[in-house]
Amino acid sequence: MAVTAKALFFDVFGTLVDWRNSIACEAETALKPRGIALDWPAFADAWRGEYQGALEEVRAGRMPFCKLDVLHRRNLEITLGRFGVGTLGEDEKRDLNLAWHRLDAWPDVPGGLARLKRKHWLAPVSNGNISLMVDLARRNNFPWDAILGAEIAGDYKPKPRVYLAAAAAFDLKPQDCMMVAAHSNDLAAAAALGLRTAHLARPNEHGPGRGESAPSIQVDYAVKGLDELAEKLGV
Amino acid sequence: MAVTAKALFFDVFGTLVDWRNSIACEAETALKPRGIALDWPAFADAWRGEYQGALEEVRAGRMPFCKLDVLHRRNLEITLGRFGVGTLGEDEKRDLNLAWHRLDAWPDVPGGLARLKRKHWLAPVSNGNISLMVDLARRNNFPWDAILGAEIAGDYKPKPRVYLAAAAAFDLKPQDCMMVAAHSNDLAAAAALGLRTAHLARPNEHGPGRGESAPSIQVDYAVKGLDELAEKLGV
Repeated sequence: MAVTAKALFFDVFGTLVDWRNSIACEAETALKPRGIALDWPAFADAWRGEYQGALEEVRAGRMPFCKLDVLHRRNLEITLGRFGVGTLGEDEKRDLNLAWHRLDAWPDVPGGLARLKRKHWLAPVSNGNISLMVDLARRNNFPWDAILGAEIAGDYKPKPRVYLAAAAAFDLKPQDCMMVAAHSNDLAAAAALGLRTAHLARPNEHGPGRGESAPSIQVDYAVKGLDELAEKLGV
Repeated sequence: MAVTAKALFFDVFGTLVDWRNSIACEAETALKPRGIALDWPAFADAWRGEYQGALEEVRAGRMPFCKLDVLHRRNLEITLGRFGVGTLGEDEKRDLNLAWHRLDAWPDVPGGLARLKRKHWLAPVSNGNISLMVDLARRNNFPWDAILGAEIAGDYKPKPRVYLAAAAAFDLKPQDCMMVAAHSNDLAAAAALGLRTAHLARPNEHGPGRGESAPSIQVDYAVKGLDELAEKLGV
């Protein structure tokens, strides 16, 4: 019998939205009029490059939980410094930091989620904070049933409590939930707790040819887009 | 200048859904085939009558926070006992308890929320748990941006932290949020924290003519339906 699940939990950065091109474009829009010329995709990569280290401070208990917006801001300061950009005011930095609220979805996502919603409960289980998830949902028509993830769990993936808090919020056992992500480590953490897993290939997440085109672990489904996942789930 | 707010927070039981007629109907559907004949609206009133007392156990710290589903179940046992219904099995009681997940909206609500969503972030700030809110949203087409309220706050209204946690989740100051409710005590608690307030009249919540047809405190808006609220907010 085909593997299925009542709820589908989605990773967001990289899996549903193209953070790299969106951040590169946002940085260029914000900084180029000030006469700043950078390698914009490299700036996006560098900003994102501080991500796991910042999360690890919280996961390891060296820092109390705070919203991802706060960590993004800390990482922005580091990244601006590294690229020699020292002239931005507070308002400009605050607005640039909100670039993460204005990411664009990969093309298959809005239609795919609408289709999947017919038979499944849908929620982001992302490290992004609730307000960030709402902005992305409004921008890209993500039809979430609820916003779950790091902020309701008070910790960051891949810590077990983030997946377990999401299942508990929906009154479901882990095996009635499926984690959908473009990253094998996210899926490995979910699978270890009993969740079902679907790997969604995003081979260009980190630039052309630099992304997971296939999972490096065993998963229930490996697909190239959300319509293919819907077909496998019989939606 | 007209009072407005980026986010609208909604009370749900009584304000958006007609719990009394829905619960009376669910109880009749569940129990009548077993030869049980009761005054069904009185059964609904009695079940709901245990509500504030149960919440107060949590609010006062005599009981740790648990989902409203758990309190509803405790209150169901009390109510079945009071009405002399002693023959239900575990599965039947579990299903009857989920009647609170199957409440019907007042007629103005689905269209009114869709209209309000064009300009405002919308969330329930209810004492109902997340899964209950999702079931009501799917049944009645409530287009929530996120599910906020008691479960993310870990306490029950009208405790301040429930309203403040909702505003914080949306990165908003209290004055940028408006609480919409059919109950003056809910609005009074929100107003004391700086939230804006809208009273939605539900004069028949507790039966014909037994509901708040007008607020007993000063509010920013007092309306008869969500379309009237949308007009006042210029949506």
